[in-house]
Amino acid sequence: MRVVALPEILAAIDEGEILAALEEGFRRFAAGEVDVMAIGHLGFASPPGDCHVKGACVRGDAVFVVKLATSFYRNPTHGLDSSNGFMAVVSATTGEVLAILHDRGRLTDLRTALAGTIAARLIAKPGASIFGIVGAGTQARLQAESIRRHLGIETLLVWARDSERAKAFAAELGGTAVPLDELCRRADVIVTTTPSTAPLITSDMVAPGTRIVAVGADAPGKCEIAPEVMARARIVADSVPQCVDHGDTSGAFRAGLVRESDILQLGALLEDPIGFADDEIVIADLTGVAIQDVQVAKTIWARLGETH
Amino acid sequence: MRVVALPEILAAIDEGEILAALEEGFRRFAAGEVDVMAIGHLGFASPPGDCHVKGACVRGDAVFVVKLATSFYRNPTHGLDSSNGFMAVVSATTGEVLAILHDRGRLTDLRTALAGTIAARLIAKPGASIFGIVGAGTQARLQAESIRRHLGIETLLVWARDSERAKAFAAELGGTAVPLDELCRRADVIVTTTPSTAPLITSDMVAPGTRIVAVGADAPGKCEIAPEVMARARIVADSVPQCVDHGDTSGAFRAGLVRESDILQLGALLEDPIGFADDEIVIADLTGVAIQDVQVAKTIWARLGETH
Repeated sequence: MRVVALPEILAAIDEGEILAALEEGFRRFAAGEVDVMAIGHLGFASPPGDCHVKGACVRGDAVFVVKLATSFYRNPTHGLDSSNGFMAVVSATTGEVLAILHDRGRLTDLRTALAGTIAARLIAKPGASIFGIVGAGTQARLQAESIRRHLGIETLLVWARDSERAKAFAAELGGTAVPLDELCRRADVIVTTTPSTAPLITSDMVAPGTRIVAVGADAPGKCEIAPEVMARARIVADSVPQCVDHGDTSGAFRAGLVRESDILQLGALLEDPIGFADDEIVIADLTGVAIQDVQVAKTIWARLGETH
Repeated sequence: MRVVALPEILAAIDEGEILAALEEGFRRFAAGEVDVMAIGHLGFASPPGDCHVKGACVRGDAVFVVKLATSFYRNPTHGLDSSNGFMAVVSATTGEVLAILHDRGRLTDLRTALAGTIAARLIAKPGASIFGIVGAGTQARLQAESIRRHLGIETLLVWARDSERAKAFAAELGGTAVPLDELCRRADVIVTTTPSTAPLITSDMVAPGTRIVAVGADAPGKCEIAPEVMARARIVADSVPQCVDHGDTSGAFRAGLVRESDILQLGALLEDPIGFADDEIVIADLTGVAIQDVQVAKTIWARLGETH
């Protein structure tokens, strides 16, 4: 069993390679070729924290991956990162644990950001040049950087609940802090990255043709986009069961405004792209799926030469 | 993050200490003081194998534990152990991964064996001196050794489907291979440890007063004891939901022969022992619960000095 520390993991990251592996993973997942474990969760009250365990295997692969990721939200007040964890790479033929990628949550951050890029590429209109980011945390930064690199975005608009933080964040990234309704009106693609538990984007803010990648709502109780907006939109889900359970889709689904059969699958669209009409509202609901962890860990592990 | 290899783990095992920790764990679990993750499972067809992920936290503890355990049944034909895996010890206040105990499944074997000893001590009649073991694999050996040490058993009877293997196993342990009905008739305590998918012990074999610890049926589809036997018995479960789902209790439960409210909890009995009448059939149904993993890993970790 090889233990790979964070610096070696970061050095092995090839973003293009991981993007391709993630797209392949979403396609295989949508095609039903991935076995997925029930998600394990432990919640902690004091100090507040979460632990999620996800695991999956692409049928026929030589290895499978189980990920443990923790978030303890008060860690930064003690000078610690809030994220921690590892990805275990396990032989699918002997069950031997080949590697522990001690990524401290960084590969989860990366695969989440790159899924945003994949979804944005899929739903953005040709020539999209104005990008709006909602939130000012780690994921907002990663999404902004990745989408800017891969979509050739020129203008960056920022909104965050804390307007001072939004200004600082915008300045750092060479963007502009604006009110949320202005961001929604002007941006060609919007990415939402907050841990909000109440809708931030309401129906009055959303004009026909708006394109949103919703990343924040990844657990029960979280919500960034009003159910009425979801009801007006074509929804593209990373996982239909997860999105109707706890994604931004879930509120609209439970209210009967969205039917499961109306939801498109990200991986199916990657396999067989369809065009969207210019005035369609399209929302990619990304809750985070185990196949992303599998694909990112496999890619890193292959880069490391599979020596152990 | 400290990685602890198997030799160091084995050197840190104090069986008495782990027995006490397991009893404490069962009590806390029965009292509702343990948060438990949904069990993660991946099944593999070719070569056949299983991966289980279990995790739990005793409320108020400084650490929690997530275990990954694999069984690949054809490994021995390649000179490999069938079991592999690790237990991760994680801070319950920061989410940092403190240790990977790379036990290769050995701590799971141990905690399973010691739970058998705990159950046997609880349900055996005073003065029990004849012990019957059903099966001849790793768990049969561990159960026999542990129960002999802790219950002062004098006579060991062995049955296994493969009679040559049963004889060799009995000779090795200083016991006697006998037919299954004879074993059931003579043994004061029986432990069943096979991966059988059809009942081995049928109602005609079981006289009033028989005491059985059922360890083999730990996953859906497995079954060692006929539902009619379960229906005649007082059942003691390590976890009531797990036992009615996939333990030896499950067949009788689904047939309506056993009600959930009739099942006793192992941890509750450890807290408040009740006497059993001499002629009562008592069966402990042990499916294996995450609290056992937590307690064994915590005990090893404490022994290692919690240095990292």
